[in-house]
Parts: sequence; structure tokens; C-alpha cells
Amino acid sequence: MSTAGPRGFPPDKTVADVGEHRLIDALTAGMPHGSSTLVGPGDDAAVLRVPPPGTVAMTTDVLVDGIDFRRDWSTGADIGHHAAAANIADLEAMGAVPKALLLALVLPPDTKAAWVIELADGFVTEATEVEVDVIGGDVSAGSQVMIAVTAVGWSPDGRYLSRAGARPGDLVAVAGPLGRAAAGLMILSRGFRSPRALVQAHRRPRPPYGSGRSALVAGATSLIDVSDGLLADLGQIAHASGVGIELRGADLPVDDELRAAAGAFNLDPLAWVLAGGDDHALVGTFPTTAQLPAQFVVIGEVVPATQARSPVTVDGRQASAPEGYQHFR
Amino acid sequence: MSTAGPRGFPPDKTVADVGEHRLIDALTAGMPHGSSTLVGPGDDAAVLRVPPPGTVAMTTDVLVDGIDFRRDWSTGADIGHHAAAANIADLEAMGAVPKALLLALVLPPDTKAAWVIELADGFVTEATEVEVDVIGGDVSAGSQVMIAVTAVGWSPDGRYLSRAGARPGDLVAVAGPLGRAAAGLMILSRGFRSPRALVQAHRRPRPPYGSGRSALVAGATSLIDVSDGLLADLGQIAHASGVGIELRGADLPVDDELRAAAGAFNLDPLAWVLAGGDDHALVGTFPTTAQLPAQFVVIGEVVPATQARSPVTVDGRQASAPEGYQHFR
Repeated sequence: MSTAGPRGFPPDKTVADVGEHRLIDALTAGMPHGSSTLVGPGDDAAVLRVPPPGTVAMTTDVLVDGIDFRRDWSTGADIGHHAAAANIADLEAMGAVPKALLLALVLPPDTKAAWVIELADGFVTEATEVEVDVIGGDVSAGSQVMIAVTAVGWSPDGRYLSRAGARPGDLVAVAGPLGRAAAGLMILSRGFRSPRALVQAHRRPRPPYGSGRSALVAGATSLIDVSDGLLADLGQIAHASGVGIELRGADLPVDDELRAAAGAFNLDPLAWVLAGGDDHALVGTFPTTAQLPAQFVVIGEVVPATQARSPVTVDGRQASAPEGYQHFR
Repeated sequence: MSTAGPRGFPPDKTVADVGEHRLIDALTAGMPHGSSTLVGPGDDAAVLRVPPPGTVAMTTDVLVDGIDFRRDWSTGADIGHHAAAANIADLEAMGAVPKALLLALVLPPDTKAAWVIELADGFVTEATEVEVDVIGGDVSAGSQVMIAVTAVGWSPDGRYLSRAGARPGDLVAVAGPLGRAAAGLMILSRGFRSPRALVQAHRRPRPPYGSGRSALVAGATSLIDVSDGLLADLGQIAHASGVGIELRGADLPVDDELRAAAGAFNLDPLAWVLAGGDDHALVGTFPTTAQLPAQFVVIGEVVPATQARSPVTVDGRQASAPEGYQHFR
């Protein structure tokens, strides 16, 4: 057991003890930069060099303690990994190449400084794995830990994928895990800590990095990040594209671990696969002539829009249409 | 007195009554886009078209209720204007041309929906005035209103201004007001509501839009946004550039209104001018040969670094060296 936490902050020191300036110095010390970053943290703004044709994708996301994460269920490092992964996945869903992140933190004065450094280190580690720079940020005091992330990436050929291009006859295909983060969340909420791999899927979701760009290159017609659940997010594609979507239950990926955990809770694992969010898989649509990238598996097809209540069916039946997680309810 | 607030939300309806989806629909309905925005709000990420040479500046900032603003001292619209202005000013300080903003909000469930729309409308109005698009955002629930803004701009010629280029012999010059927002804040904190123009300077600071780029074109060697106070922010230039800075008190801009208000509080108005933040003026350094842009007035000069405790002096005397506002204290 060390008496000093990361970057020399003793474990009992709060951000109030350390002060804003020393905290920021410690945070920015752990942020290395690649050649696209002309100015990193510490000036009024960061500066990036974007290659031609200059097509830049940007997204922002706020995560709030007790709502989007729990400090008793995840470590600071877990939360940092998760915050980076969720935002990078949104860029993947545009077919963009992720390049940079900004990290803004609201911290109660009694927050342990070492915890904040762990969070930032997790964030930077996740980003660095996919050659994404952390180029700036901000800190402020508040009553609750809050993490605001902005992610920026670009398209080497100027093309990008929206939710609006699916056409009847296209195949529906998914890359990455489904339902595993939801299973992990239920395991934690029932007071368990295993199976460890499912708990870890909640704490540190692993988006299928690189498969967004691969989907674009393979000719995908639409793509979305599965953050609210497969049905809800495919519903977004159906709505934006003006189509219906038919899934085949037998083709949905359900691994043995997920099946066993569902059995232990007396649940159908498909409930997690269809409605569970936060795995940050990518689901999209491809022409039947496309050569699917290796990460993608076909789970259904695009049909003309119907008058049905839900635009997404499973084995021909109206899927119950969860709206995804709604804040303020 | 209307019974319905902005975009049809009755004044008594909270964000919990309205729900996340309807709130987001109402927010994004008020966000028009120019030709640089290829994809606006509503997809996984926004997409911008950046002109050659693709030099992009980005900054993020969090504002927290009760710390960075007070809902009893400022309207929702004021807070929206302020949040946009503060972030656009950071881009100005890089000599960049501001182009787009992202707006993420954390809202307690009992927040009035009409207040949120007013805030967003103020934000969009401030942005639109300088041809900046609001291209995306996020909302989450939390215990405290929190506003996270990301601003993005670019440089038409690839050049930008950092804090690090000041050289001995350069002139120090400022564009925009100094001390007025601090005066307004003190007026409000003492329970007064006038002089109205100073209160308004706190509620809706007016950065000298366009003068950051003008400074770069005129040959400025460094530039910073005055958000922590003139002494603190010039201290940042001095530190980053490895120089000292000598200001002349008689050249500092003090208008009659500021002088009168200071008199009423039995204060030296220079205290506000030197230490007051949040006006979002721009201060920088220029070679003596430069033709200063019209907005800038000379207030001092750059000297070699000294061993003095403070790198900034006023009329040859060590200026007391406030560190600027520090969170967590």
C-alpha cells in the first residue's frame, strides 16, 4: 500500500486541499499529443491540423454521478475509460476517424484529488489506445461530479454516415457486443460482483473501434451507436430513413455467458440484447451487394415503412418499443 | 401576460413534465445552420466543413449554478448569452474565426422547461450575431444546473495566436471593456440593481468580437481573453512568453460610469480594471511597428523577465498578484 496516490497526491487530499491550479497541472501532465495537435492544453483553445478535405465530426456528452455512473460500482479509472469510449463511439457511428477529446469536470470540493487523476488517466488511456489526443478541458466546482466530454474526428475522404440512408432491401448488421453492459448493470444492482466479464462490460464498454470507418468504406447506408438499446437505436434509423426494420431473433448474438447470467435471473437474454444500452456496439444497414467488414454480423433486413406502431419487428412480431433511457423521469 | 412560455411550454411545466425527448426537440428547433454545417443536431455527431488549410481551434468550459452564475441575478437568456460569449471569446483569443458551438446541459428535474428554452434562445442569439452555428448538444439530469459549452473555430490562413510570443519591446494593448462586469457583480452582491449598464455588463458581457482575428492580421505576438482579471491574465502571457510586463495606470481605460460606481462604494476603480474578470476583453502584445486595429488601446509594454515576485507592474510598482478566481477554495 502506497501512501501517495497518482502524481504524488496523498490519498486523503481533496481537490480543495490541492487547489485548482495544481490539479489542472497534474491533469494536463498526463496528456501526450500526436502530430495533429498543434496546441494542446494550457492556452485559450487547443488547435488541431485537419487534413483535406476538412470534414470534421464533433459530439458532446455529459455524464452525471448517480445517474450515468456510480462511484461505488466503478473506479475512477473505469469511469474515465467509459466516458472516453462512449464519445469515441459516437464518432465511429458517423464513419469518422476519432482524433481528439476535450474533458470538462465539475467536482465537489471534497472530491479526492487522486480519484480525479485516476479518472483522467483512465480517460487518456482509453483515448491513447485508438490514437486519440486529449487536447484540453476545464474544471469547476459543483455539488455533484459531472463529466462533460467533447469528441472530434474527421473523414479522410469527406464522406460520413448518418442515420438517414437505409433503403428497403438493405441488410441490417451489428458490430460489437449487445446486452452485456445491461447484464453487468443488473448484476451490480442486485448486489453481486460476478460474472466478472459482464460486470466489466458495464464498467468499461469496448466499442468495436475502427468498424465505423470500415462500414463506411464497405458501402454502409446508415449507422448508429447502440447506446439506448438495439430496438430504440434501430428505431432512430427507421425514423430518420423512413423505413421499417425486421430482425431475426435467431441471428441476434447471445453468448453462453449472457445466457447463463439471464438464466440465473430467470430472464430471457434477448431482453438485454434488444433493450440494453451502453455497450456502444455499432448497428447499421448495408446494400446486399456489400462485402461486410469482418466485425459485422447480419441480424435482419430493411423493409418499406409500415403503419405499425413500432418500426422494428423481431421474427415478424411487433417488438415492444422501449424509448431508451429518458432523463428527468 | 402570456399563459404559454417559449415554444408552447406553459410557465409552470418542468423538464420532468415535458420529458427529455420533447425538450430536445424544442431546443434543436431553434438552431439554424449556415453552409459550413453539413450535419446539425440530431445525429450521433455534427459534421462541419472546414476550409483549407484545416486549422481548427477548440475550447470547452463548464458553468455551474451558484458559482459561475446565479439564477436570481440573471435571466435564463442572460445566462445563455454569457455562456456563448465566454466561449467565443476564447476562440477570439487564438485569433480564430468562431464557427460553431455545442451546448450540454445538466438540469434538475424540477427546472422549468420555459427557462431552459430561454437559456438556449439567448445562447443561439449571441452565437447567431457573429454567424456561429449551434450544431449539437446533450442533456442529462442532475442536482444542479450545469452548462458545458464547446466552441470551435478556424483560421483562414492557418495562423493562430498563443500566449507565448510576447517579446521585450512589444506594446501591450487591450480591446473591449475592463472592470465593468466586476462592478456589476459587486452592485448585485450589495443588493442593488443599478447602474443598469454595469449590471448588464456582468449579465451579458460583450467581447470585442472580431478583434482577435484583427490582432493576428495586424501582427500581434500574443493574445489572451481577460476572464480572470487583467493582472492574472497578463501574468499568463508573461509566464508563457518568459517576459515581464509594465502597465501605465494613466492609460488604463476607466470610464466615468465605472469611476462613479467605484466612488459610491469608496473604491479605487482601478481595482476592478486590474483584477475584475468576466468582461472577456482581449489583451495582447504587438511589435512597435504594428498598425494597431481600431479596437485596441496601448496600456503598457513588454520588458525582459525579472526576478520580481509578480511579472506585471503598474507605474513601476509590483502589482498585487491576485491569482484569479480559483475553484474549490
